[in-house]
Amino acid sequence: MTKNILVVGAHSADFVWRAAGTIATVTSQGGSARVIALSYGERGESGELWKEPNQTVENVKRIRYEEAKTAAEAVGAEFICLDLGDYPLDMTDFAVDQLIGVFQDFAPNIVLTHNPIDPFNPDHPVASQMVQKARLLATGAGVDSAFSRITPPDLYFFEPHQPELCDFKPNVFVDITPVMEKKIKAMDAMKAQGYLHQYYSELASRRANHARRISGMANVKFAEAHVRTLPWVVTGL
Amino acid sequence: MTKNILVVGAHSADFVWRAAGTIATVTSQGGSARVIALSYGERGESGELWKEPNQTVENVKRIRYEEAKTAAEAVGAEFICLDLGDYPLDMTDFAVDQLIGVFQDFAPNIVLTHNPIDPFNPDHPVASQMVQKARLLATGAGVDSAFSRITPPDLYFFEPHQPELCDFKPNVFVDITPVMEKKIKAMDAMKAQGYLHQYYSELASRRANHARRISGMANVKFAEAHVRTLPWVVTGL
Amino acid sequence: MTKNILVVGAHSADFVWRAAGTIATVTSQGGSARVIALSYGERGESGELWKEPNQTVENVKRIRYEEAKTAAEAVGAEFICLDLGDYPLDMTDFAVDQLIGVFQDFAPNIVLTHNPIDPFNPDHPVASQMVQKARLLATGAGVDSAFSRITPPDLYFFEPHQPELCDFKPNVFVDITPVMEKKIKAMDAMKAQGYLHQYYSELASRRANHARRISGMANVKFAEAHVRTLPWVVTGL
Amino acid sequence: MTKNILVVGAHSADFVWRAAGTIATVTSQGGSARVIALSYGERGESGELWKEPNQTVENVKRIRYEEAKTAAEAVGAEFICLDLGDYPLDMTDFAVDQLIGVFQDFAPNIVLTHNPIDPFNPDHPVASQMVQKARLLATGAGVDSAFSRITPPDLYFFEPHQPELCDFKPNVFVDITPVMEKKIKAMDAMKAQGYLHQYYSELASRRANHARRISGMANVKFAEAHVRTLPWVVTGL
Amino acid sequence: MTKNILVVGAHSADFVWRAAGTIATVTSQGGSARVIALSYGERGESGELWKEPNQTVENVKRIRYEEAKTAAEAVGAEFICLDLGDYPLDMTDFAVDQLIGVFQDFAPNIVLTHNPIDPFNPDHPVASQMVQKARLLATGAGVDSAFSRITPPDLYFFEPHQPELCDFKPNVFVDITPVMEKKIKAMDAMKAQGYLHQYYSELASRRANHARRISGMANVKFAEAHVRTLPWVVTGL
Amino acid sequence: MTKNILVVGAHSADFVWRAAGTIATVTSQGGSARVIALSYGERGESGELWKEPNQTVENVKRIRYEEAKTAAEAVGAEFICLDLGDYPLDMTDFAVDQLIGVFQDFAPNIVLTHNPIDPFNPDHPVASQMVQKARLLATGAGVDSAFSRITPPDLYFFEPHQPELCDFKPNVFVDITPVMEKKIKAMDAMKAQGYLHQYYSELASRRANHARRISGMANVKFAEAHVRTLPWVVTGL
Repeated sequence: MTKNILVVGAHSADFVWRAAGTIATVTSQGGSARVIALSYGERGESGELWKEPNQTVENVKRIRYEEAKTAAEAVGAEFICLDLGDYPLDMTDFAVDQLIGVFQDFAPNIVLTHNPIDPFNPDHPVASQMVQKARLLATGAGVDSAFSRITPPDLYFFEPHQPELCDFKPNVFVDITPVMEKKIKAMDAMKAQGYLHQYYSELASRRANHARRISGMANVKFAEAHVRTLPWVVTGL
Repeated sequence: MTKNILVVGAHSADFVWRAAGTIATVTSQGGSARVIALSYGERGESGELWKEPNQTVENVKRIRYEEAKTAAEAVGAEFICLDLGDYPLDMTDFAVDQLIGVFQDFAPNIVLTHNPIDPFNPDHPVASQMVQKARLLATGAGVDSAFSRITPPDLYFFEPHQPELCDFKPNVFVDITPVMEKKIKAMDAMKAQGYLHQYYSELASRRANHARRISGMANVKFAEAHVRTLPWVVTGL
Repeated sequence: MTKNILVVGAHSADFVWRAAGTIATVTSQGGSARVIALSYGERGESGELWKEPNQTVENVKRIRYEEAKTAAEAVGAEFICLDLGDYPLDMTDFAVDQLIGVFQDFAPNIVLTHNPIDPFNPDHPVASQMVQKARLLATGAGVDSAFSRITPPDLYFFEPHQPELCDFKPNVFVDITPVMEKKIKAMDAMKAQGYLHQYYSELASRRANHARRISGMANVKFAEAHVRTLPWVVTGL
Repeated sequence: MTKNILVVGAHSADFVWRAAGTIATVTSQGGSARVIALSYGERGESGELWKEPNQTVENVKRIRYEEAKTAAEAVGAEFICLDLGDYPLDMTDFAVDQLIGVFQDFAPNIVLTHNPIDPFNPDHPVASQMVQKARLLATGAGVDSAFSRITPPDLYFFEPHQPELCDFKPNVFVDITPVMEKKIKAMDAMKAQGYLHQYYSELASRRANHARRISGMANVKFAEAHVRTLPWVVTGL
Repeated sequence: MTKNILVVGAHSADFVWRAAGTIATVTSQGGSARVIALSYGERGESGELWKEPNQTVENVKRIRYEEAKTAAEAVGAEFICLDLGDYPLDMTDFAVDQLIGVFQDFAPNIVLTHNPIDPFNPDHPVASQMVQKARLLATGAGVDSAFSRITPPDLYFFEPHQPELCDFKPNVFVDITPVMEKKIKAMDAMKAQGYLHQYYSELASRRANHARRISGMANVKFAEAHVRTLPWVVTGL
Repeated sequence: MTKNILVVGAHSADFVWRAAGTIATVTSQGGSARVIALSYGERGESGELWKEPNQTVENVKRIRYEEAKTAAEAVGAEFICLDLGDYPLDMTDFAVDQLIGVFQDFAPNIVLTHNPIDPFNPDHPVASQMVQKARLLATGAGVDSAFSRITPPDLYFFEPHQPELCDFKPNVFVDITPVMEKKIKAMDAMKAQGYLHQYYSELASRRANHARRISGMANVKFAEAHVRTLPWVVTGL
């Protein structure tokens, strides 16, 4: 089965730090990937850019777009920004409808987005809630319904900055060793938040340490940790 | 990789109701299975047998052994009872050492046992704790150690009788449709607790309904639900 | 004291599967029952009806109304649909005001509605939140207030389809044995979702098995499980 | 049905502060009550007595016995101390067997004991665990078994000193208004811990405030709060 | 460092019962305090006033304002009411913007507000959510951002009326012994809810008992309990 | 007040990785520190040493002792090993009595030990339980008691290897920047587990990043994260 992964972030750079390795894994295995940014993060996460004199919001968005597009390409993904505004990002009917359209158009079988809890960020939980709502509305409740619907994709949450304080307990570690160079390229593209590069490289290394201890798979050098929200249905343990 | 599944129950019949389908799935796919009963359940779960006049504990154990062995054979598993006593089952050093021996001898890559919480049964949580301790002692803490050690097997808990009151939230559903006939044969062998046959057939059907809703896999007719205790380490979502 | 039970579902059929036995118990003991459907479930839960050629939304609503009314009558309840729309059901001020009106008019001493968590349905948690808000606004905070208020009714959540994944831990089991025939009649009325009939009959039987194990009440053959949200205040254990 | 309530405390005075009102309620309604102290609390909770020069452990136990007996009589209960030692109280086979004997002899339909968590006391969680184990061993697992068994009594935990830090969430409030004078008499008998008298009188008053807000029962002036561990099975909401 | 404490309540009197001692502690140690009431509580918590014939909403607000102002002065705080309406209090963009303005103007380093859960009150959770959102929007996500921002203040929740049912587990106890007289004066000012005076005096005494047991600080006679939401960063244990 | 910190690990090296910075902070601020190892970790955590031909248990213990002593000295602490055995470490009366003696002799006001949950290690939870029991037995339950007792020290848990899977949510971050060189020296002393050096250096750096985000304290370069088990009692927020 071909894999279509949809990654939704509140701001244009979120997918890079938290999911670029997973995206690259899907695309390098023949799947396709689409990244949706609900906003450019032009207010809350572009501080470096605003230090420039005479900076404008259009210019900030343009730069953020270029960076995100470059990063997405580095991991083989298409990048689209819905430009819904940040700080705050609001869950309006319009915004949810946009997302439903994305679900119906792309028909992903995997969706990856923010954790529902984050005491450090006003937009991340809103993004998580929007994705959950749009996913259910695009797929129906599991019975035939009045509107066109897609098969419900698996829903995952990617790792927040301070996992314990977000009540985030990863139950899936993705081995991103074969594609780590692609994630590094994607991180390199994010010039405005360059200080996060080292942080998330070390995190990938630490999560790999955990993955080795959990699984005994000795060759995992880099990993990303996620939460899968629904049970696995398998044909054998 | 060949799969070796070890199933540990507090009493000789536990594996039948809660894991026989999963066992049969493993063995029908070429793996091997060993069932360990920590006791025969001769005191707490053999009420029907004790209604016979002049019943003896040896006879109860003998009947329970025959039933369990027949059930195990129906799903392709070996059956061994450690005969540690029930009501109460106690976690002694001797008992843990016995279990460590089983781990080292059989070297399972999957272990399936009781949930750690069960307000209705004094022995189930003890069995769960024993298995967890023996597993860690047989495998070391993930670093090289002073004693011979096996690779840590995946640890699962099977479904208790009243899941919500046991704080049991299944995160794996095994499709047992292809082997349901074998589970039925195993259940048929348990004459002393025959009233559970219908209960667990319906449960398998209900869990399949859940599995279909979760996964969209329309052909799941029977399923067993378990809790996997450690994260999945995967090479792709 | 006469019992007035108010049951609020997101869609017109919800009360049948999850609460019809409890309703019939109240009415057969001399109490009165009112069922409020926030919507007809005309979009998300009427797939069978939409398979008819030239189907219209008015016709779907009409059929759903007839079925629900028949089912409600089978258990002695009045049925009213607020027709607020489904998929999504939204918590507007208008919708909450409608519900407050129902509380003030009917003055229930028992309210039964959806669990606040349901990862499979976009409307159920919204319905739960609406009922909780309307209940508090209709009753005040327990002190005298500026507006006419009713005595706070006991608030219960009925059982969702996949209880463990909804974090649903029942703390009340209602013995519906004496009225099971009425629940069966109510279920028979729901032609569009007939496949749920067997599912919920087996559930009633399984919950009765649990209830017997919990209580020792040997005559419970069918039961419904709910969560009571506030403590019991009793004059003796 | 006649009510037999069994109250088990780690130390001889525990039942007074936490359950005397509930005991008096049962006995004043025609039921019978037995209080079991697992120890006299002669080491950890008799500090005042040990300030006496030439104090002996026998004398401390004698005084504690007299006080507890007087308090028990004030609420109509029989008092027995198993004298198993405190600080630490240990869960030995001998101790559990003693308790099983109590269950079989008294055949209670209600059991009230400590909460399983208490970061301030080493003996309270042990007592809770012992009672839970003995209750299951005395009653079997809900099926016929090899040994004589009693009907499983309802199991409750009484309120610890710092409820939030013990993860104690009361789900039953007992109105002890009609018997508050008896509880006061029982508390008066506990001379060595007299400073707790005011504390627990205020608590009874505060819990009554809560009970009124929860239930609307305006006449509750004093209450005790407990946790019921298993669901209610009822014949109507 | 000078301390600026901001206390936000849904209704004008909330700060008195739950936080007046903490406010007085800050101001008596040289800090400054501002109390924001999101509404006067003119509908839901002014029942006594509405018993007066010919009462008007303006008059209720005036009286509530006078009481709250007097209480705030008793503990050295400034009092401002945003008059956003109660029963229900709604989280509108306008309301959040008002609160952001307060954060930017006062630049608190401590914020104290309602617990996010309260099954007895429709407005308290809304107030908690508004404060959390406004705090994040006023402070950014911890990186430089496009708009003027303040340093993130520590966020605390004060004690609700029924802590266990609100899932409130205090992790900070403030010794208010030196300022208890000021809290009493503040409570005296609240004539319309006078019956709470004794309740919260006893609570302060009980929380002090807990604080003594936790810390060994023998001189704590009165205390208030709060939840600090983020970890402590310290330069030594 | 002089600070006495007691750090208890299951194995001789545990304190180095998880608490050396906190120890050095205490000692560099004039406090004193004692490290207790319950065992040398001679079986479960000395794999490198056992690779030597003709290795003996005495020699392993001797080497582990030297390393731990050197590490303890690097952070100004005394090191004592109780040599109770590992894999498994058992909670015997003898072991608890030894620990009680340590508490009474050293009279710490801070205790730091393992988290109660660790699915990767059989000894860590046992050590945690032993420390909690010994602490309560050495201090009494907060009232005068029959035996000599010390003031209850604050109890903390240090960070386990995989925090989320251990349900570890840090609520205290200690800034160890000024003493990081001492922690590095301590880690250098642990030759047999040298591969952990980099892992825990990066962890200290990552926890500092978290601490900066939480507190705004820009100069934190290295931190250790702990869980404080009981509330803070403070004289002001």
